[in-house]
Amino acid sequence: MTQIIPTSSQIEAYRQKFPGLGNKVYFNFGGQGTMPQPALDKIFETYRYIQGNGPFCTSVNSWIEEKVALLRGAIAAELNAPTETITITENVTTGCNIALWGIDWQAGDRILMSDCEHPGVIAIVKEICRRFQVELDFCPIMATLNDGDPLEVIAKNLQAKTRLVVVSHLLWNTGQVLPLKEIVALCHDKSPRVQVLVDAAQSVGSLPLNLPELGVDFYAFTGHKWLCGPAGVGGFYVSQNALETINPTFIGWRGINIEKSRPTGWKKDGRRFEVASSACPLYAGLKEAIATHGSWGSPQKRYQKICQLSNYLWESLEEISGINCLKKSPPESGLVSFQSENIANKKLVEMLEAKGFMLRTIADPDCIRACTHYFTLPAEIDKLTEAIRKLV
Amino acid sequence: MTQIIPTSSQIEAYRQKFPGLGNKVYFNFGGQGTMPQPALDKIFETYRYIQGNGPFCTSVNSWIEEKVALLRGAIAAELNAPTETITITENVTTGCNIALWGIDWQAGDRILMSDCEHPGVIAIVKEICRRFQVELDFCPIMATLNDGDPLEVIAKNLQAKTRLVVVSHLLWNTGQVLPLKEIVALCHDKSPRVQVLVDAAQSVGSLPLNLPELGVDFYAFTGHKWLCGPAGVGGFYVSQNALETINPTFIGWRGINIEKSRPTGWKKDGRRFEVASSACPLYAGLKEAIATHGSWGSPQKRYQKICQLSNYLWESLEEISGINCLKKSPPESGLVSFQSENIANKKLVEMLEAKGFMLRTIADPDCIRACTHYFTLPAEIDKLTEAIRKLV
Repeated sequence: MTQIIPTSSQIEAYRQKFPGLGNKVYFNFGGQGTMPQPALDKIFETYRYIQGNGPFCTSVNSWIEEKVALLRGAIAAELNAPTETITITENVTTGCNIALWGIDWQAGDRILMSDCEHPGVIAIVKEICRRFQVELDFCPIMATLNDGDPLEVIAKNLQAKTRLVVVSHLLWNTGQVLPLKEIVALCHDKSPRVQVLVDAAQSVGSLPLNLPELGVDFYAFTGHKWLCGPAGVGGFYVSQNALETINPTFIGWRGINIEKSRPTGWKKDGRRFEVASSACPLYAGLKEAIATHGSWGSPQKRYQKICQLSNYLWESLEEISGINCLKKSPPESGLVSFQSENIANKKLVEMLEAKGFMLRTIADPDCIRACTHYFTLPAEIDKLTEAIRKLV
Repeated sequence: MTQIIPTSSQIEAYRQKFPGLGNKVYFNFGGQGTMPQPALDKIFETYRYIQGNGPFCTSVNSWIEEKVALLRGAIAAELNAPTETITITENVTTGCNIALWGIDWQAGDRILMSDCEHPGVIAIVKEICRRFQVELDFCPIMATLNDGDPLEVIAKNLQAKTRLVVVSHLLWNTGQVLPLKEIVALCHDKSPRVQVLVDAAQSVGSLPLNLPELGVDFYAFTGHKWLCGPAGVGGFYVSQNALETINPTFIGWRGINIEKSRPTGWKKDGRRFEVASSACPLYAGLKEAIATHGSWGSPQKRYQKICQLSNYLWESLEEISGINCLKKSPPESGLVSFQSENIANKKLVEMLEAKGFMLRTIADPDCIRACTHYFTLPAEIDKLTEAIRKLV
């Protein structure tokens, strides 16, 4: 496969935009992306503008409102979704909270979750269950990585009282991509209709997306992982059909209409779930990061490159004796999870970090995760696999 | 009064730290504070550090954890509160949401609010009332600005089923300081005990505070107004007694203990209400802003200066024919609200902004608000009152 991934001088030049790439070998894009310098510059410039012209006055307040609208538009374009479906949030988990606390739960309702969800999301669901006497079911998706059908597992685990399915589009631990369109169709065909909440932490910025086509009800994501924006800005998509099925929970001036200092109703679109003051400069930064990726290529082209590179990494890891990739066939995403036979995964990550290779461990299943982005170099993959070979 | 506020060259030099002060005459500290350059520098430096050393790896993740702890400590010191009582939030309203959604509401419970609360907070309370069949009562605090006793008004409006009182410590519209310690004592003496949630948007960074002494249960604030930190970082205080009386609602990895990717319980302190990824560089920026104020003087000294200056502004405005201050006696805070007789308040604010004077309107009561910080210059007040005199 190596021959189809030439290290062009073009990509080397492009990588100069990312100050985080120069002095290390970075494989943690699923943890946090390296920010492009234009995004950092935009943040600093926005701070200077706001201090220079405000910070608080009529003209700067309008200017900030424009920047918020521009980010909302940029995010919507990335998801192929109407602007009205987008709520700007602080992170993925906030989006999951918006959906989960927004549903009018009845005692006896059930939530079905995959067994690969993030502990933060599990904790929300458990508290929902406690407060509203809702029941939680887990279904064994992890075991379908190499064998079995996630759609079938979900179908088998839906119960008459299941009201919501909570799954990730791209599993953070194993890198498996779930057949989301089919899962949504299955859930929506149930009577009463089952809604689908997606943890999109790993999919936004790595998979090409068309959310209306996927049909999903709720899709929660962040800007600081694959989109390489600043930590502290994320988003939440709610389909036009699902908007009126949930109520705002955490509420503030950004989500309401106001007359004479009194609230008079919700904003008509996704803004209703936004709360209050946020860091506008970071919004401008995320918008710039999205534009940077766009300047390199379309989401389709980026995804193709991500997979070329993760396939090369997977192949190279598979050749190392003492290293076992969890997935037994080529990855369909930028996440490559593997285990070391003779040395604890945690220890191996520490030793690699000391040598300038950034990877992370995952606790369940106990493994190491390496992420390739579209601008990862094959030479970096070679260096990593060489380093691993020497250590294990 | 002028003679006791000398414009020293010392304060001129100190003001050089604030790039937002140089090119305008700024009176909107209650909307957003002008950031000190050391805070801006710290934000930019933190971004560079994180990109240079991470962004995501074991060592940077630990480093970020330290920065979060340092900010928590700095906020706690500012409030004279134990570090364990502090939750870091995105803004004031988020803190109000934490308390309001955290209470185990029973149908028939009542909430008592002042008639001077922010529309965002009113909207939360209204949604709580709708979801849990709770009743809302407003009490007429606005009318006590010049005459009458807020404590008496609250005492008269408490009902047998009142469970929570929601008030601001420093009213955002009229600048009145409420006798919070007495209000809390009154509420806590009730059986069953009535809890007190305070919107502290205007009090943190302007009043000297000792929260355990005030006895308040919940105190929600922001770093971007009187503390002059970046927008997007605030805090929430929950007293040690009240901690176990509320449950976390918006939940995420920061608030829970985790074992093998599964949540095992809440963090033992205020961290349990924190959600997920935030912008660490802004945390470092707020900490630096707090340190900057500390380098000028204690909260007591700053408050004294704020009042000297607001008193001077109030006196000067009172001398302008066609301008009426809402408060008929000298202000006890940095907020001075006034009305123009012959020209719409909104129009006057626009004309002043065009001349480089930053003030804002308030809708209820219809007025203009000007804020003095401890580093406001008497000369700025003179310029403002002169400009107003010419326009009205």
